[in-house]
Amino acid sequence: MYNLLKGKKGIIFGALNDQSIAWKVAERAVEEGAQIVLTNTAVAIRMGTLDELAEKTKAAAVIPADATSVADLENLFEEAQKALGGKIDFVLHSCAMSVNMRKKRTYDDLDYSYLDKTLDISAISFHKMIQVAKKMDAISEGGSIVALTYVASHRTFFGYNDMADAKALLESITRSFGYIYGREKAVRINCVSQSPTMTTAGGGIKGFDGMLDFADRMSPLGNASADDCADYCITLFSDLTKKVTMQTLFHDGGFSNMGMSLRGMEQYSKSFVAENTDENGHIIYG
Amino acid sequence: MYNLLKGKKGIIFGALNDQSIAWKVAERAVEEGAQIVLTNTAVAIRMGTLDELAEKTKAAAVIPADATSVADLENLFEEAQKALGGKIDFVLHSCAMSVNMRKKRTYDDLDYSYLDKTLDISAISFHKMIQVAKKMDAISEGGSIVALTYVASHRTFFGYNDMADAKALLESITRSFGYIYGREKAVRINCVSQSPTMTTAGGGIKGFDGMLDFADRMSPLGNASADDCADYCITLFSDLTKKVTMQTLFHDGGFSNMGMSLRGMEQYSKSFVAENTDENGHIIYG
Amino acid sequence: MYNLLKGKKGIIFGALNDQSIAWKVAERAVEEGAQIVLTNTAVAIRMGTLDELAEKTKAAAVIPADATSVADLENLFEEAQKALGGKIDFVLHSCAMSVNMRKKRTYDDLDYSYLDKTLDISAISFHKMIQVAKKMDAISEGGSIVALTYVASHRTFFGYNDMADAKALLESITRSFGYIYGREKAVRINCVSQSPTMTTAGGGIKGFDGMLDFADRMSPLGNASADDCADYCITLFSDLTKKVTMQTLFHDGGFSNMGMSLRGMEQYSKSFVAENTDENGHIIYG
Amino acid sequence: MYNLLKGKKGIIFGALNDQSIAWKVAERAVEEGAQIVLTNTAVAIRMGTLDELAEKTKAAAVIPADATSVADLENLFEEAQKALGGKIDFVLHSCAMSVNMRKKRTYDDLDYSYLDKTLDISAISFHKMIQVAKKMDAISEGGSIVALTYVASHRTFFGYNDMADAKALLESITRSFGYIYGREKAVRINCVSQSPTMTTAGGGIKGFDGMLDFADRMSPLGNASADDCADYCITLFSDLTKKVTMQTLFHDGGFSNMGMSLRGMEQYSKSFVAENTDENGHIIYG
Repeated sequence: MYNLLKGKKGIIFGALNDQSIAWKVAERAVEEGAQIVLTNTAVAIRMGTLDELAEKTKAAAVIPADATSVADLENLFEEAQKALGGKIDFVLHSCAMSVNMRKKRTYDDLDYSYLDKTLDISAISFHKMIQVAKKMDAISEGGSIVALTYVASHRTFFGYNDMADAKALLESITRSFGYIYGREKAVRINCVSQSPTMTTAGGGIKGFDGMLDFADRMSPLGNASADDCADYCITLFSDLTKKVTMQTLFHDGGFSNMGMSLRGMEQYSKSFVAENTDENGHIIYG
Repeated sequence: MYNLLKGKKGIIFGALNDQSIAWKVAERAVEEGAQIVLTNTAVAIRMGTLDELAEKTKAAAVIPADATSVADLENLFEEAQKALGGKIDFVLHSCAMSVNMRKKRTYDDLDYSYLDKTLDISAISFHKMIQVAKKMDAISEGGSIVALTYVASHRTFFGYNDMADAKALLESITRSFGYIYGREKAVRINCVSQSPTMTTAGGGIKGFDGMLDFADRMSPLGNASADDCADYCITLFSDLTKKVTMQTLFHDGGFSNMGMSLRGMEQYSKSFVAENTDENGHIIYG
Repeated sequence: MYNLLKGKKGIIFGALNDQSIAWKVAERAVEEGAQIVLTNTAVAIRMGTLDELAEKTKAAAVIPADATSVADLENLFEEAQKALGGKIDFVLHSCAMSVNMRKKRTYDDLDYSYLDKTLDISAISFHKMIQVAKKMDAISEGGSIVALTYVASHRTFFGYNDMADAKALLESITRSFGYIYGREKAVRINCVSQSPTMTTAGGGIKGFDGMLDFADRMSPLGNASADDCADYCITLFSDLTKKVTMQTLFHDGGFSNMGMSLRGMEQYSKSFVAENTDENGHIIYG
Repeated sequence: MYNLLKGKKGIIFGALNDQSIAWKVAERAVEEGAQIVLTNTAVAIRMGTLDELAEKTKAAAVIPADATSVADLENLFEEAQKALGGKIDFVLHSCAMSVNMRKKRTYDDLDYSYLDKTLDISAISFHKMIQVAKKMDAISEGGSIVALTYVASHRTFFGYNDMADAKALLESITRSFGYIYGREKAVRINCVSQSPTMTTAGGGIKGFDGMLDFADRMSPLGNASADDCADYCITLFSDLTKKVTMQTLFHDGGFSNMGMSLRGMEQYSKSFVAENTDENGHIIYG
């Protein structure tokens, strides 16, 4: 709509289907004039509908890559540069998975090989991606790299399990590598901390339904949608944010800075039905 | 019990009655071997039961002082040093009041002269107290100054109104003056960010009842009581924390680092009675 | 360049001369298709060159207003809406002044009437501006309000004096009012925490020269300029950031998340000339 | 000195020699009336002088354990409970090592198997230790677990490499497990973020010399020593801090909340010798 990304070349990790945030980002980036390459694991490409997105966005290529494999990432950056005809201006990292959550291992009963996988897929893959790109000098001077995160890296949400730790690690990598890639190539690296979003991944989290409602009532602007997130990512890929780096940027309708909203408390208070209040209507504390 | 404050001399601001945190701190400080002076405004001394506390704690003196008056503070530090026979080792600041809240002025309809009062009583008084003490050289080398704050300085709680802003200002003064008094006299200045506590002051806050319950369910250790807070303050006055300064220290059972607890969400979910859920039991989002 | 603000109407506070960040924001906003009204105090308008900016940006009006005066603000919003032909879509608040700094009162020797002025001009003016606008319903649904701040609100910088406290208060007001204006009118309120910038205001701060150099060497992307800041503000006024609110957004080349950079330490180490190191070249600690 | 830990039983991980923070904590804990068990890897026990400490502190046992091995940890907690005659009241985790740093692999050239080791030894070991203890119900109701961390988890320090990420992960585990162990057994889990300390581990970090000096000049109280840290840990193990959990507690003389001190800047400014300043003494920016 604005040509904010005119002439820019990008790689989008992690689109699965049209509920994915990465899907929306891909669409919006192209609307803004970018050319893109799409990537995901071979399995995810089979399971999802990435080809549909590729067609819609006239993607230069769909390149399968396991983001935990340095070899795959090397191939990706090489092929992407060929397909796009030059260096990469922006990258979206949207990769997260917890086997512990899938296997219903609680946080006090983690399987440590699963934990290693969680960290590798959801956080270390970000380091690998950047290290590979930097070694190949595949990102343009002043380029922009964005990863998606969640506020659970800062505050504990029951059921978010080892993914909280992975997101904390991801945000630390953002700072650590943001420093180095910034000083050497003026490449920016940031995380967008997004509202809980009803994607295929989000839907798998325990108690997600209630959490979505609570977050929505807590946030003065309501939960940010995947479309909203795509808009925001566009600004971070654009030339208008060239001095923003190493940050976790909250894109969540205000949730991150809320302690308790009136709407949240009104809803909460409805839980205190007759049996939980005394004759004067005061709460009997649990 | 431990003689942690043996031989130390302290001033306790803001005890009103036996629900006050300051009251508990005074008692615990004396149990730990300290000698104290109590102070509050003349009005609060008349309204409350400070003399009872003075007797119980064998306070060296009760000295009325308006903490917003530099002259009163000068008199206080002079008289306190006389009564205690030397410099002051520790000070507790527990002063907070919002006329806007009392007069039910909402945050988008503040009276600005009331706001000035809120800031003066709840935050600037802390600066005045420290500036007066420093000019008089009334605090011992390595002394400890503590103010009470609340997490609303970091995240917004509906109904906490301009007090949130006052607490943010208080915590900034803690940092700014902590730097100066630290470098010059090794005096530590910190804030304790306490759980919501059912004191006379706390009870006046809109929706406090529900907030207490929510905080308690969110905090893995439950809300910290005034007694717990007194214990914690003792450690900060002691010689065991000589290198801690400029901090906001959360004493809240873990609340500050929680996003959502299981207990909190279970309670919240009870609010979704029949009319709010569809035929499959899913929440109809509001 | 992108028409990001096409059709939007804005008010810019605080442009003094062409070094001012507000000046750059005004220029960029108009380049992006906005219509604007400029405002500053009558004194600042006389001292500076605001009329030049008004001409350059075809400003709809230049309206003098003391941002600490509710009456002036009421007049401003009324006249601005008339001049612009409708409600306001975005506002930049760039007002800060410390009489204590000007009069060389150190932080442990503050004049409290000066402190009141610092807080009123630099922070409470932001509340007044928003409260007036909200009461007059002068901001469009989904509008965007931005204030400029500095990282000294979070960490202490010697010589920044009571301005650090003012900025902490400003950021708290951003959260507190962001909640209310967000929930009621979807109006976003954010602070941009900008690198130290050599403006007329910045130049007045003690040790500013050294601080500029240090910040530049610490920041992987170097200090952000006033022009960079203008670009960033444009994204916050645009429709692409509709779910970002209550935040302090660091626009500082990464400084805020740096502890120590190689460039910073290399420079620092040069300070240890011969007399400060032992025969093995080790630092003799001071 | 105060009997603060009278009757308490503790396990101290990670003492190597009398420069170690863990060594000092062990000594102070015993002075305060605790009985302890010491543990470290078999290699570290051989390399260091742990037996000397065991004798000095009349340790109930020295039990070798690799903190990354669940089996070793199970053995440790079983044997420690036998040796101490009951459940454990407090634990100190002081384990950190980066092979990447040792092998001089820079952050943009990490070896990923080394990174896995860094995370396992320095962060995941903390989870393992707690998970094992919880499964064995080896910690007393209301017990206290403390890990040592460094501010590099929040802000980037050049040369701190992947250890920064490990510390971020460690602090996240502190929150995540603090929630669960708190709600179920009132066990507190916190991190102490300590000043840079000239231990055997600290000494290995690139540019550590200069960093120590800079931190000391930045901190209004100067760097906290290992002895200071031991004092502080005692308060966290005691019954006076029963409501503090999930926190990163800065024990650093104020460093964490400093942006720039006068002493720091005065030293920094000395680096601008003649060739770096113009004829008016202004810095020529680099």
